[in-house]
Amino acid sequence: MRIGAYGEVMLRLTPPEYRTLEQTHSLRMDFTGTGVNILGNLAHFNLSASLLTKVPKNRLGDAAKANLRTYGIKTEFIGQAHNHIGSYFAEVGFGARPTYVTYQNRRGSSFGVSGPATYPIAEYLETIDLLHICGISLSLTEETWQTAITLAKQATLKNIKVCFDFNFRPSLNLEEGQREILKKRYEAILPYCDLVFGSVRDLHGLLGFGEQLPIDGLEEQQIVQAFMAQYGIEWFTGTRRIASEDKQFISGMIYTKEETVETAPQLLQVLDRIGAGDAYAAGILLGYAEKWPLKKTADFAITNAVLAHTMLGDVPLITREQVEQVLKNPGVDLFR
Amino acid sequence: MRIGAYGEVMLRLTPPEYRTLEQTHSLRMDFTGTGVNILGNLAHFNLSASLLTKVPKNRLGDAAKANLRTYGIKTEFIGQAHNHIGSYFAEVGFGARPTYVTYQNRRGSSFGVSGPATYPIAEYLETIDLLHICGISLSLTEETWQTAITLAKQATLKNIKVCFDFNFRPSLNLEEGQREILKKRYEAILPYCDLVFGSVRDLHGLLGFGEQLPIDGLEEQQIVQAFMAQYGIEWFTGTRRIASEDKQFISGMIYTKEETVETAPQLLQVLDRIGAGDAYAAGILLGYAEKWPLKKTADFAITNAVLAHTMLGDVPLITREQVEQVLKNPGVDLFR
Amino acid sequence: MRIGAYGEVMLRLTPPEYRTLEQTHSLRMDFTGTGVNILGNLAHFNLSASLLTKVPKNRLGDAAKANLRTYGIKTEFIGQAHNHIGSYFAEVGFGARPTYVTYQNRRGSSFGVSGPATYPIAEYLETIDLLHICGISLSLTEETWQTAITLAKQATLKNIKVCFDFNFRPSLNLEEGQREILKKRYEAILPYCDLVFGSVRDLHGLLGFGEQLPIDGLEEQQIVQAFMAQYGIEWFTGTRRIASEDKQFISGMIYTKEETVETAPQLLQVLDRIGAGDAYAAGILLGYAEKWPLKKTADFAITNAVLAHTMLGDVPLITREQVEQVLKNPGVDLFR
Amino acid sequence: MRIGAYGEVMLRLTPPEYRTLEQTHSLRMDFTGTGVNILGNLAHFNLSASLLTKVPKNRLGDAAKANLRTYGIKTEFIGQAHNHIGSYFAEVGFGARPTYVTYQNRRGSSFGVSGPATYPIAEYLETIDLLHICGISLSLTEETWQTAITLAKQATLKNIKVCFDFNFRPSLNLEEGQREILKKRYEAILPYCDLVFGSVRDLHGLLGFGEQLPIDGLEEQQIVQAFMAQYGIEWFTGTRRIASEDKQFISGMIYTKEETVETAPQLLQVLDRIGAGDAYAAGILLGYAEKWPLKKTADFAITNAVLAHTMLGDVPLITREQVEQVLKNPGVDLFR
Amino acid sequence: MRIGAYGEVMLRLTPPEYRTLEQTHSLRMDFTGTGVNILGNLAHFNLSASLLTKVPKNRLGDAAKANLRTYGIKTEFIGQAHNHIGSYFAEVGFGARPTYVTYQNRRGSSFGVSGPATYPIAEYLETIDLLHICGISLSLTEETWQTAITLAKQATLKNIKVCFDFNFRPSLNLEEGQREILKKRYEAILPYCDLVFGSVRDLHGLLGFGEQLPIDGLEEQQIVQAFMAQYGIEWFTGTRRIASEDKQFISGMIYTKEETVETAPQLLQVLDRIGAGDAYAAGILLGYAEKWPLKKTADFAITNAVLAHTMLGDVPLITREQVEQVLKNPGVDLFR
Amino acid sequence: MRIGAYGEVMLRLTPPEYRTLEQTHSLRMDFTGTGVNILGNLAHFNLSASLLTKVPKNRLGDAAKANLRTYGIKTEFIGQAHNHIGSYFAEVGFGARPTYVTYQNRRGSSFGVSGPATYPIAEYLETIDLLHICGISLSLTEETWQTAITLAKQATLKNIKVCFDFNFRPSLNLEEGQREILKKRYEAILPYCDLVFGSVRDLHGLLGFGEQLPIDGLEEQQIVQAFMAQYGIEWFTGTRRIASEDKQFISGMIYTKEETVETAPQLLQVLDRIGAGDAYAAGILLGYAEKWPLKKTADFAITNAVLAHTMLGDVPLITREQVEQVLKNPGVDLFR
Repeated sequence: MRIGAYGEVMLRLTPPEYRTLEQTHSLRMDFTGTGVNILGNLAHFNLSASLLTKVPKNRLGDAAKANLRTYGIKTEFIGQAHNHIGSYFAEVGFGARPTYVTYQNRRGSSFGVSGPATYPIAEYLETIDLLHICGISLSLTEETWQTAITLAKQATLKNIKVCFDFNFRPSLNLEEGQREILKKRYEAILPYCDLVFGSVRDLHGLLGFGEQLPIDGLEEQQIVQAFMAQYGIEWFTGTRRIASEDKQFISGMIYTKEETVETAPQLLQVLDRIGAGDAYAAGILLGYAEKWPLKKTADFAITNAVLAHTMLGDVPLITREQVEQVLKNPGVDLFR
Repeated sequence: MRIGAYGEVMLRLTPPEYRTLEQTHSLRMDFTGTGVNILGNLAHFNLSASLLTKVPKNRLGDAAKANLRTYGIKTEFIGQAHNHIGSYFAEVGFGARPTYVTYQNRRGSSFGVSGPATYPIAEYLETIDLLHICGISLSLTEETWQTAITLAKQATLKNIKVCFDFNFRPSLNLEEGQREILKKRYEAILPYCDLVFGSVRDLHGLLGFGEQLPIDGLEEQQIVQAFMAQYGIEWFTGTRRIASEDKQFISGMIYTKEETVETAPQLLQVLDRIGAGDAYAAGILLGYAEKWPLKKTADFAITNAVLAHTMLGDVPLITREQVEQVLKNPGVDLFR
Repeated sequence: MRIGAYGEVMLRLTPPEYRTLEQTHSLRMDFTGTGVNILGNLAHFNLSASLLTKVPKNRLGDAAKANLRTYGIKTEFIGQAHNHIGSYFAEVGFGARPTYVTYQNRRGSSFGVSGPATYPIAEYLETIDLLHICGISLSLTEETWQTAITLAKQATLKNIKVCFDFNFRPSLNLEEGQREILKKRYEAILPYCDLVFGSVRDLHGLLGFGEQLPIDGLEEQQIVQAFMAQYGIEWFTGTRRIASEDKQFISGMIYTKEETVETAPQLLQVLDRIGAGDAYAAGILLGYAEKWPLKKTADFAITNAVLAHTMLGDVPLITREQVEQVLKNPGVDLFR
Repeated sequence: MRIGAYGEVMLRLTPPEYRTLEQTHSLRMDFTGTGVNILGNLAHFNLSASLLTKVPKNRLGDAAKANLRTYGIKTEFIGQAHNHIGSYFAEVGFGARPTYVTYQNRRGSSFGVSGPATYPIAEYLETIDLLHICGISLSLTEETWQTAITLAKQATLKNIKVCFDFNFRPSLNLEEGQREILKKRYEAILPYCDLVFGSVRDLHGLLGFGEQLPIDGLEEQQIVQAFMAQYGIEWFTGTRRIASEDKQFISGMIYTKEETVETAPQLLQVLDRIGAGDAYAAGILLGYAEKWPLKKTADFAITNAVLAHTMLGDVPLITREQVEQVLKNPGVDLFR
Repeated sequence: MRIGAYGEVMLRLTPPEYRTLEQTHSLRMDFTGTGVNILGNLAHFNLSASLLTKVPKNRLGDAAKANLRTYGIKTEFIGQAHNHIGSYFAEVGFGARPTYVTYQNRRGSSFGVSGPATYPIAEYLETIDLLHICGISLSLTEETWQTAITLAKQATLKNIKVCFDFNFRPSLNLEEGQREILKKRYEAILPYCDLVFGSVRDLHGLLGFGEQLPIDGLEEQQIVQAFMAQYGIEWFTGTRRIASEDKQFISGMIYTKEETVETAPQLLQVLDRIGAGDAYAAGILLGYAEKWPLKKTADFAITNAVLAHTMLGDVPLITREQVEQVLKNPGVDLFR
Repeated sequence: MRIGAYGEVMLRLTPPEYRTLEQTHSLRMDFTGTGVNILGNLAHFNLSASLLTKVPKNRLGDAAKANLRTYGIKTEFIGQAHNHIGSYFAEVGFGARPTYVTYQNRRGSSFGVSGPATYPIAEYLETIDLLHICGISLSLTEETWQTAITLAKQATLKNIKVCFDFNFRPSLNLEEGQREILKKRYEAILPYCDLVFGSVRDLHGLLGFGEQLPIDGLEEQQIVQAFMAQYGIEWFTGTRRIASEDKQFISGMIYTKEETVETAPQLLQVLDRIGAGDAYAAGILLGYAEKWPLKKTADFAITNAVLAHTMLGDVPLITREQVEQVLKNPGVDLFR
């Protein structure tokens, strides 16, 4: 199965050694984004992975493409236009000190200002069997929203599976009017989606499912099933974090009409707090693409997410072999 | 409230990545010292923070001043004279391996050889409302002792609050005669002090309060109250460390004549073991300067100290917002 | 003489070791800009140097201010608002390979979107005796243009000297309409200016002085004098580059109504090609501020510019002593 | 025209900052080789560039492929087998100190032990229009020689142009018997070649053309024409270095049956002494592929080689635009 | 007691900051190997430590020797011949992600191709009182096996103690015939050995002691005693790892004919997972050389091993004072 | 011939990339000094090289010794006492910008406070055939002066050759009384010296030889011969720098009673301006030790000095082979 994704390429700038921006003159430069992360990981699972996006038509855009090629992502459908790239500074936290992310220049980026007419959508869809769309596109600009909905509709017409990541951050959508618009956009795209990454919190918070928080296990089942039925969703999937003393655990769950699976909680040991959700998504897409049993899929995906937390950078450059070795030999800490 | 401090600027040289001096050709250069740390932190709390000290009259002294300005410290009263700066090498430990600090050249430094006549004390005191003096000045050289006591007396005359940090390290004062001299100096300066940072161990070990170790909770209260009464101290404050298995916890306490508050113990996750005591002091001074309730002050200060352990370098570049975020949202590990 | 400047703070990101963006994951981060460069240098000459600008109200803006403080720039009038900072990537060239500068996000920056109403102009002007305005402000946005002209007018009212840097880049102003607007803005601000940095090429290319290129020495004199007379300019000054085989030389000239001085050509040995023009300006302003003879001023300024080419980064952190040592001991390559 | 190349991928390990191996614990890691260099450059000229080679079947081989993708090289025909990669340490010289290259492990590498049967030659040849073969393959191992001759023959059968780089290093082939074998291999492959990179010194030294050294200009013409006639070579091309005082110049020449062109000598300013010959080859192949006039081709190629000397690393990541800018604006040292 | 060792010098190449080979262009270069590690540590305990080995006769071999000298190892008996050095890439793991070691070029290294005739064995043995031989020599090449057995025999003749490290990795010796050969070599060398580092698992897995796994405590005693009796072994010693939740503990044990001691389990906090076994060995050899009681020896050795886990790099550069400080002041995390 | 030297070990701290102290938080750490430089170089020529000095009795002193071992220097006679090491910061210049050296803490260093009684002089002299003494010892402290003269006398008694380096820096000895003392010390030690490194400027400026500056070639001969005759000097030798436009040349000369040789001037291309004089000395000592002809000695020494300018760091880690290659193949810039 050939995987595609529509999403932003961002420049991540990271001070070294847990330092803050004030403490350093040195930054690590990486190119990242939900689509980049998922496709980069899938390419390391040896799947064909092709990104549809826009980067600047300048030397920075060239460098972005060179970096995506390293990850194994196909760049044939990455256009170059305009001059700006969205970026963020990640001051990596430690212990009680949280990671701080400072965004720059997202709405005016080459990606943000490019609408559907600027992409060779039909040609692109010829080259993929499944398309991932990130929810951020729905809230970034009118142009990215139009591109996302156009892609979802045309993909559905061509029987290409559509996979949608809620990626809804309440804190970013405070104004009431904004939120109403956003809700309508989510409701408009969901009928075209087959797999959805999200949580009951998203269904409740944005779409209004369920009565009120907290939601117990039984109600959770009902909400998810109602949501899936309403929009004809095949798989609904996400992760759950559990904190216990000073430790964190993570588990993954997949809902289908017939079945719900949830993995055992896995201990998180965190080197970099960003991008691990995308690793979970990549694991799920691998299992889906290769028609694995649900449980095997969830176990692989959650182990992949755990490993992603142990790598610096957003892009989880984890191979299929690495995940399988950890599943087979948990606790082995040295391979020669 | 405008805060001043009299203290040494030291050059800290640190091998990267937990390496030892033998393992590296690369050192991180920072400028530090108790006064520097406290003032740098207070400047990040948006208080006016001005240092009184001497650095060399050469390019190294220029660089020291440039670094202090970065922290937000006012450098108008930093004189430049002589040629040497005190320095230390910090080989940062990990796990069971302790951090090793190797000092160089402290007594012969520009700071160490400068007595009170070399400072524009009257002008300086015009610019501050509270003065911090570090106990190290009492044991470093005759010149620094004379400067410290002169400052304490003149500040008191001008109704400027004096804050004194015991900073008594028994291991550094082994010889009996030395210790007697030191005791007399502490006793001479304390009548001019309003806030004192220290521990019952200091009161017992240096000043002879209490009978014998260990000291229980009740006796501790009595000793502290006796000490405060004798010298007319307003606040006596410090931290306590508790080890439990392989974890460390820290709590902070403040004594006044009327009241004693102690915070809940906080888990320490340590990136750098040096300078965290100064962060506690900065938090206390903020609460004192802004007339916060004791409990709020202690909670803020201890959280600030916990955060200081998570930053590389001695100088705790923590903002007021960061401390408040952790107090409000403990456990949140990512802010976007 | 206390110097002020109104100008943009930019983030400069530089790959190390002459590498290109494609070849590295590591970037050097610096904060720069014409105003920053000139003030940073003047502060190293021990003049009071205060910047009027806006940086983002976030951790990146905090870091920018911390960096400016290192240079010795006063930051009391640096506002924090909005979220973006202009930035550029500098791929440093070598030999025949030119340096490539790629800009990001300038017009939407905190500086670019802030008009005169957002600055405490009157208070700021109380603190300075001379104000430097960079021509870039005239072409960046309507807001920066309005701020620049407002500042020039009010400074003139208060008998504060105004120093204006043409900084006209024909390549950036291709469209005919744009250019007409720009010409009018230059003509509008020049009557309020006392010192102008520029070249005959600027006077010809933008303002239409002189007949046609090339312009010979005599005509040059006439054009400059006509220009100075028309706008009441006190000093007109700039540099000239001469290439000879594979070497480059630079000379500086100052025109007043009465006199023209030009320095001997100085050999350029270039470590970093950006920011050296600002070093020349800083040298000129020092001589002007301290009422030096024209020739001494020009010699100091051109030596300062030569030294600026030998330092990495845009900000010329050169001291008065360093320039004087080179003037006194040319060819001495080691001071102990 | 789609370009292919058969050649070794090597690991280059370089101490930073002109240091020697003794002076550092830090190495820069790059993946390089004649085929890699030429294809990486051609990909930056926007030509399709696909490498035929073997890298280890382990994490190092994975990393090698990731690096080649960055350069823009197609990796579909890069096999993974065995465990070793050839490597070299480059201690970069400065001034009178030469660069020292220390090789490791070439003959036992995955590339060295792989013969023609291990490559999908027919499929590969379907994807290219011109094939570059490096002379090193003729002397490395019996397996690489067999692969090279097989490729040359099959390419000729399919009307794919064959381009051969002499790359003959007398110092590496000291033993007389060895040299005889090598001569026979060169004579065996040349009839299948269309373009040849080399020098008259190679034709004389290995193949025995011409009487004795030195060879004057006229004789040079005769030797080259005789060589080209004997083997039916379309283009014979190479560079010439001229030293003058402490400067070095380089010129390029192309011979065809009808015509000889030679460029003006270009000044070399050298940041890295390795890989510039491959940049010349890439420039020649671009002109050949796009049927440019000989002179335009040679000028482009020699400028590209000059630029390659100004970049760190063997792989000349120079774009078509960069070469054209230097040709159009020689001496411009800053593009904004 | 003067200690010698026969073993391979390897080049270790490590990406920084827990990165993978794909994520970096930067590698840390170190020279390591079982003999190097043990001798480097013993030199830090102020024992005379001299290595017998071969490194390449080129600049890389020179650099290897320079590095060994840093550790304090005597290099008089390190020959230089041939051109290759064995190397390995260590991608350091974190949390659930294991460390991956990728070897290059071991069997063809200068060490691997050098047999006993190439070493001045008699002269070497004059300079030492105890010789350490690593089991890897028995499986690497015929030449290293011959050298090892020759050394063991001649040392025994001269009453030099022989210390042998099993270092048996089942995964590396899969083929049945190979294993049989290896078993015979172990059986041939053991009669000449006095101290043996290993585990009951080795005695069972390679030499066939004991019935079947798992082996209980009592049987373990019997196996070890039988093994020691059969080969006349003085000390048999090794470590045991115990995992408990997400923590790891380590203990050390020494068997003699009369006595068995085992240390309390020590918590492992791991910065680098490679080389800690050699630190244990160095601690044991120190106690043996200085005739300490068994318990003191084991406690020192296990503490040394715990400290080795907290240092980057294979070579445990731990001093006697450091171990003693940790034994005396467990939990003290800062020495000034 | 086994070479010894008595001299200070200094800590050199260098900002990277031609940066100034203000521009960096990163320093390169090296251990250096005239004796270190000469012996490190001689060890690379395969001569026995042993240093007599004192370093601190702490972890910094341990690191100093480890670094000296890397260079190949024998450290058996390096004592460890006291706590301080002399250090200097080297801000490396470029083009017109000179290198700035800022010293710290020399007179109070372990070396500075150690007199002759603290060294095992007799034992040390047993191990060497020639002793190098640096003139700095005569001006540093009374203790180092006493040690130097004691060594010179005892060496002479044992027929060990004494080699003395003037190393007289007028700028460091401004006060008249100081200078008189220094002159007497030089006059006192010279009768014990066999080889002297210096210049006619030294003989004139410190010892009062010759009438007045400038000194022409003939007078130079007379002065040197008079000096050599007076003190019984065997060889007097030094270098001469000639500047021509923006280039620098260096030549070396050796005077004996019978003969004067001077090399051709060599072009200097400078990567690091410190330590090259010591390379010249090392080359001279090699020729002296191996009884080469004067001209061969001078040519080797001056080429070695030229190469030393092309290496970072003071210690010239140049091998005999490297010098010979440059002498044989001048202009070859790449060895494979």
